[in-house]
Amino acid sequence: MASRTTLVDLASTAGVSVATVSKVLNGRPGVGAAKRDEILRLARESGYQPRGQTTRKPARLIDLVMRGIDNPWATCVLVGAESEAARAGVGLVVSVTHGRDLGNAQWIDRLAHRHSDGLVLVVSRLTEGVDAQLARLRIPYVLVDPLSSAPPNVPVVGATNAEGGRSAVDHLVELGHRRIAIIAGTRQLACAQQRLDGYRAGLARAGIPVDERYVQFGNFEVSGGYKAAMDLLALPEPPTAIFAGSDLQACGVYRAARERGLRVPDDLSVVGFDDSPLADWLIPGLTTVRQPLEDMARQATRILLAMTEKTAPVTPRLQLGTTLIVRESTAPPRPA
Amino acid sequence: MASRTTLVDLASTAGVSVATVSKVLNGRPGVGAAKRDEILRLARESGYQPRGQTTRKPARLIDLVMRGIDNPWATCVLVGAESEAARAGVGLVVSVTHGRDLGNAQWIDRLAHRHSDGLVLVVSRLTEGVDAQLARLRIPYVLVDPLSSAPPNVPVVGATNAEGGRSAVDHLVELGHRRIAIIAGTRQLACAQQRLDGYRAGLARAGIPVDERYVQFGNFEVSGGYKAAMDLLALPEPPTAIFAGSDLQACGVYRAARERGLRVPDDLSVVGFDDSPLADWLIPGLTTVRQPLEDMARQATRILLAMTEKTAPVTPRLQLGTTLIVRESTAPPRPA
Repeated sequence: MASRTTLVDLASTAGVSVATVSKVLNGRPGVGAAKRDEILRLARESGYQPRGQTTRKPARLIDLVMRGIDNPWATCVLVGAESEAARAGVGLVVSVTHGRDLGNAQWIDRLAHRHSDGLVLVVSRLTEGVDAQLARLRIPYVLVDPLSSAPPNVPVVGATNAEGGRSAVDHLVELGHRRIAIIAGTRQLACAQQRLDGYRAGLARAGIPVDERYVQFGNFEVSGGYKAAMDLLALPEPPTAIFAGSDLQACGVYRAARERGLRVPDDLSVVGFDDSPLADWLIPGLTTVRQPLEDMARQATRILLAMTEKTAPVTPRLQLGTTLIVRESTAPPRPA
Repeated sequence: MASRTTLVDLASTAGVSVATVSKVLNGRPGVGAAKRDEILRLARESGYQPRGQTTRKPARLIDLVMRGIDNPWATCVLVGAESEAARAGVGLVVSVTHGRDLGNAQWIDRLAHRHSDGLVLVVSRLTEGVDAQLARLRIPYVLVDPLSSAPPNVPVVGATNAEGGRSAVDHLVELGHRRIAIIAGTRQLACAQQRLDGYRAGLARAGIPVDERYVQFGNFEVSGGYKAAMDLLALPEPPTAIFAGSDLQACGVYRAARERGLRVPDDLSVVGFDDSPLADWLIPGLTTVRQPLEDMARQATRILLAMTEKTAPVTPRLQLGTTLIVRESTAPPRPA
């Protein structure tokens, strides 16, 4: 079996001095174009990896796989993962599932092929069998905020969704609201159920019975918030406050309120979830439950790198705290 | 010099059958854990690349280097580059310059080290000498919407900024505005100057003299738009319409208008630039000049891949058209 290709090998094959090979590989001038091309081609074909002064490791890559990147939530995740990968000097390959399941043969093949050191997965669900395939290829992975349950022993980084939901309700109750609605995410999602738990807990603590007509579900986009809010605002006794499942959903609630001639926060208080940059762009500024997405992605990346280096024991489950960020979209309800 | 490592080499070194090696490398079961680990390690260390049935190419990587990814403009670029890379089966390594200049020794070293096939650069400026270094390493690159002039023969994908600026002014003039201000980007930037050219051209065609107090500059963030708009609205004869250099700047104009007690569009018309998703999230929906950022990034990626494959002649300069998207933030001015 082939041992590692060295500068001497390259020089001997190319019929030049080691100094010449070194010049070419380090991008220094003084070598003719044809010879330079030949040396670069040889280096590439042989999989040549330069040795560092001491114990240089080969160039490393990890993969960040996301269900979508075209929303502010995803931007935060990307920023966190990129910064941590950059810090560690590891290349971050970004790809999007485009709604497809993970783990078709081609996908696995490409991962193995480019020697990805590991994966940070921000995906809806793992296709049956992918876990086993990745385990056999010895490609470790970490899940961020998974939408359903993860296999045991796979590290998961999430947020304290239930506490976040409760803090939103606590805030609204303190302002004097009693008709508080929730727009959770898609019904099947773990995070949506956890936030709903927190909502129920908050109301229970305040002695407010849950009115099931105030419990709505919807996708995490503007459209999901808009549709659910239109339904809520059409109730005979509409809520005076709406807790939305994402900042984008809250944006949809703003839109519905405007269409109904209601002003935020005078006529309707709105709380979002995420604290993506959007919360600060909206007018009025959105009161929202901050989940530290950047930090979650950074932690996930750090855990993955530790797994690839086998340097540290890995915490299999990590939940980062949520914080209520109060801006301008919440106020006491109008006196009846 | 080492020839390409084969399955036979791996099998012989590991002391197992070729079938066993194949099982392990394809993630199929039936091999003990210790042996599997050894085979995977050997494959990795030897830089083993499986041969395809016919003419399989090695796993390919390109780099997308951006000055920032935490804004809606960048999201569009990322979506476009990722989709084109995915279509071509090429891994997209995403990195951010974090305000640093491109091309320090470490950066060049990592690129060369992981055999990046080429770069899509969305950066402020190329550090002196990077061009020559990349040329010597034979790493091709393409610039997207560069902020300053590009070296000759380097492909550049941009948008028709001047035409975009003119279309914004044309629209406002048609609505009856005559006191039209512009918030261009940072003064030194090519795209800001081009949009300003378009603004001047639009006013000239309408026979409206340019009032230099209506010409402002500012960074492309919310803060840049806010600050410039506060200055404009404090003028003795404030503008009735503001054309901002980005959707984020327009968001800052909304904020300034609100602080001044002005309603958009009743008291102040606002036009943005980009047509990022933010334009649709803002209330009222933002009239904006669409530059096809996704498509620009897709084209840049496609050109880069063509360069790496040397399959097609490359168009060195490409400008994609801008389109005015009319939403709710523009209306006729109030009668004097």
